[in-house]
Amino acid sequence: MGTLRLSDIAGRLGLTLQGEDAEVIGVNTLENASPDEISFLANPRYTDQLATTKACAVIVSEEHAGHVRRALVSQNPYQDFGRVLELFARPQGSFSGISPLAFIHPEAQLDNDVTVYPFAYIGPRSRIGSNTSIFPGVYIGEGCRIGQHSILYPNVVLMAGTHIGDRCILHSGCVLGADGFGFARTPQGIQKIPQVGRVSVENDVEIGANSAIDRAVLDATHIHAGTKIDNLVQIGHNVQIGQNCFIVSQVGISGSTHVGANCTFAGQVGIAGHLHIGDNVTIGPKSGVAKNIPSDVVVGGIPTVDQRTYMRTLALMPQFPDLFKRISKLEKELEKIQKGSKEDKD
Amino acid sequence: MGTLRLSDIAGRLGLTLQGEDAEVIGVNTLENASPDEISFLANPRYTDQLATTKACAVIVSEEHAGHVRRALVSQNPYQDFGRVLELFARPQGSFSGISPLAFIHPEAQLDNDVTVYPFAYIGPRSRIGSNTSIFPGVYIGEGCRIGQHSILYPNVVLMAGTHIGDRCILHSGCVLGADGFGFARTPQGIQKIPQVGRVSVENDVEIGANSAIDRAVLDATHIHAGTKIDNLVQIGHNVQIGQNCFIVSQVGISGSTHVGANCTFAGQVGIAGHLHIGDNVTIGPKSGVAKNIPSDVVVGGIPTVDQRTYMRTLALMPQFPDLFKRISKLEKELEKIQKGSKEDKD
Amino acid sequence: MGTLRLSDIAGRLGLTLQGEDAEVIGVNTLENASPDEISFLANPRYTDQLATTKACAVIVSEEHAGHVRRALVSQNPYQDFGRVLELFARPQGSFSGISPLAFIHPEAQLDNDVTVYPFAYIGPRSRIGSNTSIFPGVYIGEGCRIGQHSILYPNVVLMAGTHIGDRCILHSGCVLGADGFGFARTPQGIQKIPQVGRVSVENDVEIGANSAIDRAVLDATHIHAGTKIDNLVQIGHNVQIGQNCFIVSQVGISGSTHVGANCTFAGQVGIAGHLHIGDNVTIGPKSGVAKNIPSDVVVGGIPTVDQRTYMRTLALMPQFPDLFKRISKLEKELEKIQKGSKEDKD
Repeated sequence: MGTLRLSDIAGRLGLTLQGEDAEVIGVNTLENASPDEISFLANPRYTDQLATTKACAVIVSEEHAGHVRRALVSQNPYQDFGRVLELFARPQGSFSGISPLAFIHPEAQLDNDVTVYPFAYIGPRSRIGSNTSIFPGVYIGEGCRIGQHSILYPNVVLMAGTHIGDRCILHSGCVLGADGFGFARTPQGIQKIPQVGRVSVENDVEIGANSAIDRAVLDATHIHAGTKIDNLVQIGHNVQIGQNCFIVSQVGISGSTHVGANCTFAGQVGIAGHLHIGDNVTIGPKSGVAKNIPSDVVVGGIPTVDQRTYMRTLALMPQFPDLFKRISKLEKELEKIQKGSKEDKD
Repeated sequence: MGTLRLSDIAGRLGLTLQGEDAEVIGVNTLENASPDEISFLANPRYTDQLATTKACAVIVSEEHAGHVRRALVSQNPYQDFGRVLELFARPQGSFSGISPLAFIHPEAQLDNDVTVYPFAYIGPRSRIGSNTSIFPGVYIGEGCRIGQHSILYPNVVLMAGTHIGDRCILHSGCVLGADGFGFARTPQGIQKIPQVGRVSVENDVEIGANSAIDRAVLDATHIHAGTKIDNLVQIGHNVQIGQNCFIVSQVGISGSTHVGANCTFAGQVGIAGHLHIGDNVTIGPKSGVAKNIPSDVVVGGIPTVDQRTYMRTLALMPQFPDLFKRISKLEKELEKIQKGSKEDKD
Repeated sequence: MGTLRLSDIAGRLGLTLQGEDAEVIGVNTLENASPDEISFLANPRYTDQLATTKACAVIVSEEHAGHVRRALVSQNPYQDFGRVLELFARPQGSFSGISPLAFIHPEAQLDNDVTVYPFAYIGPRSRIGSNTSIFPGVYIGEGCRIGQHSILYPNVVLMAGTHIGDRCILHSGCVLGADGFGFARTPQGIQKIPQVGRVSVENDVEIGANSAIDRAVLDATHIHAGTKIDNLVQIGHNVQIGQNCFIVSQVGISGSTHVGANCTFAGQVGIAGHLHIGDNVTIGPKSGVAKNIPSDVVVGGIPTVDQRTYMRTLALMPQFPDLFKRISKLEKELEKIQKGSKEDKD
């Protein structure tokens, strides 16, 4: 942090510096970068801006290295932009240690170098791994287990028995382990089916602000390693999500549905319960999934169909009013012909 | 909790035990149950698993009682599964009493056996009924009333004047009583219409994690007894929801809409404002409701139509590209005939 | 509030009082008003209720002034209803001063007459303008700036560097400044793109309960003055929203999309990323926006088209099953004719 020399950045990331060495204090867009900031070109749309940027240096692919004063030559400028950002990123909070204003149950167990902010609550028999940070207003219920180097941002809630892996990031206000939506309509009225399972989240998972992942009826709702979940996502009880999925904002996945690995669900997708979604499945925005989806497909629509079929159907939509006119015209013409042919015969 | 004898469970629930008595420590699926757990068969799909389950005993209907080592014979295995779960369910927290780390206004009134966790805030002139639990981070504004045996999980917010009945469950992060979305565009800019009403929730209501129910402009937004609301649901100002409804996750109901009793709204449904929805109405997932709906119907689609019409329309969707081809062909054929018939006459 | 004289209300708002002066204690609907409350007629649907209301006085346009015992004659009764409500509206909480149960970092700076409730957390180098209220459970991260006369309701979260203007209202549980959803799939797995920007909110903005506005990758996600955002709305990283927009509940706006001024997005709309939406754009409920939208249009549908085209298409939907029948019939008739004409020729 603070300032970094370009040669140092190049060395750390394995990039080639073309041009004189210099010091930079941060990262910015080509358009807004000042002469002490580094920028990047990842999208060809912005190539023109290489000529006008004030950036001290630009992360570019080899072909563009000649067009800037100083280049950090990269085989994947977007990815290396991310890695440079990491050098400059500051943590959300500089607090360390255990605040005396937090509530930590005597039967909770904290490993080394755990940070606990004021007004966090850690319940009995919960265990927090080393170097994990617990921000204000976080609630960790009874018997939870959290790994190392994880971050729980303000007002995150983990209900009893929740497991969180290492290097997870839980954004503010997400709730893990609330009761699943399980009820039976009976002659005596609605009966709640008690939810006695839990939520289990593996390593390297990120969960967005105000998302909700319900505990299982029995056993566990399970999020596998590396999966990234956006804000305001709903995940029902007993759902299983495979490794390295992207679940974009406002998606809802109903109870007991199983999702494979490496899937991408775009915003506001809804998935019915008790379904199986394969690996490498991409679902377009706002789609509604009503049945199982095999692996390696791209689907869209309500209900989902093959993405190309869906796009073709969408393209036809504005022609519908015209279609009805064409059919009415056909009917009239046909009638005319039928009349005429009848007259001919008479 | 702990262990229970099968004969004891049978006695409490009015079931018949077939087979030797034994002790069980919990409930699990047929597939995962260990020899000291009880299981159940509610879905015929899983009948095969009766042969292989390791469960100590299975809750089954009479016809399957002969296929397991020990049977708890039930007329409604799913419902009785729920009742057995209740015997084993543990509360989220074992804390009791009033934490000295909570803030309780001197003018608040707490009845007997109220539990208040650390960092809860209870405002002046609010009253909490006996045996109700208030978890950490809960905010109870001024002049609220909460009944008996209710649970407010972490970070629930009740703004001023909110009423909650008996035996309600409010899941983490739900917000009751935020201002309705009321504004007037005027020549002088946007003017806020102050929202001075409140939220009123009757007995036996459950509200999901991070859901929002807005206070009324005047009077009250009202949720009637027994209704169950899932996570991330939005309920606008002055909405009325009748008894024993199920409102599934991510549904949005706009201001001043009235909903009858025993309705079920599936996930991600949206309902416009100022509408009347009758009793016993079922709305399919992702539907958009733009006008009133009478009682006793099942609807779906955007905008909603009778569910059968909707399903028929959906089934036709993939045939649209073909449809256009058929019409173009018809037009060409007709033209040919018209030309031919003209030539005939010439 | 207490009581107000009608003549006093008329004087403050520039209305004409017709009828005897009297005292009122609140505002209510025509139907529910008691004899010490004031009511209003803004919607012609309710004109009949003028004859039966028990209200002490009614805010009406001139034409209806003769039909009530006491009239407050207004050129815009709905707007003046809002202004009268303002006279009677009470703040959510009567607390004032800085609670000793709050955590305020020694390097935070609070201007005059700031209210801080118990269990609020204010981080280092943050500055709060005068007359701003911070409710319980609010988290204000490092280096935030909040203007004057703003209200942060319970459990609002502002991550590091967030800026909030004057007279803003942030409803409970909204989260500003969580990380945007930025990842790169690489051969080595998923790489997080650090999000180092912030959220900037101008004056007179209102943000609903449990909404989420993500921080920018670089620079700022920006909400311009006067814009009102409802509950459970998702706003992605680097989004810009112009002045005086209405963003209704459960809308999702993906990253880097720019929205002009005076737009209205109805409930559950979804907007893809990197788009430009003009000024004065209205988007109908549940719409999905997949490309740029010019200014001054009304659109609807998935994907959005001109609203009239959309409504016409929707109206045709229920006729689709019939349409298929008509086409099949046409095909058969045509075939008959073709056969017949062939026979004629033979």
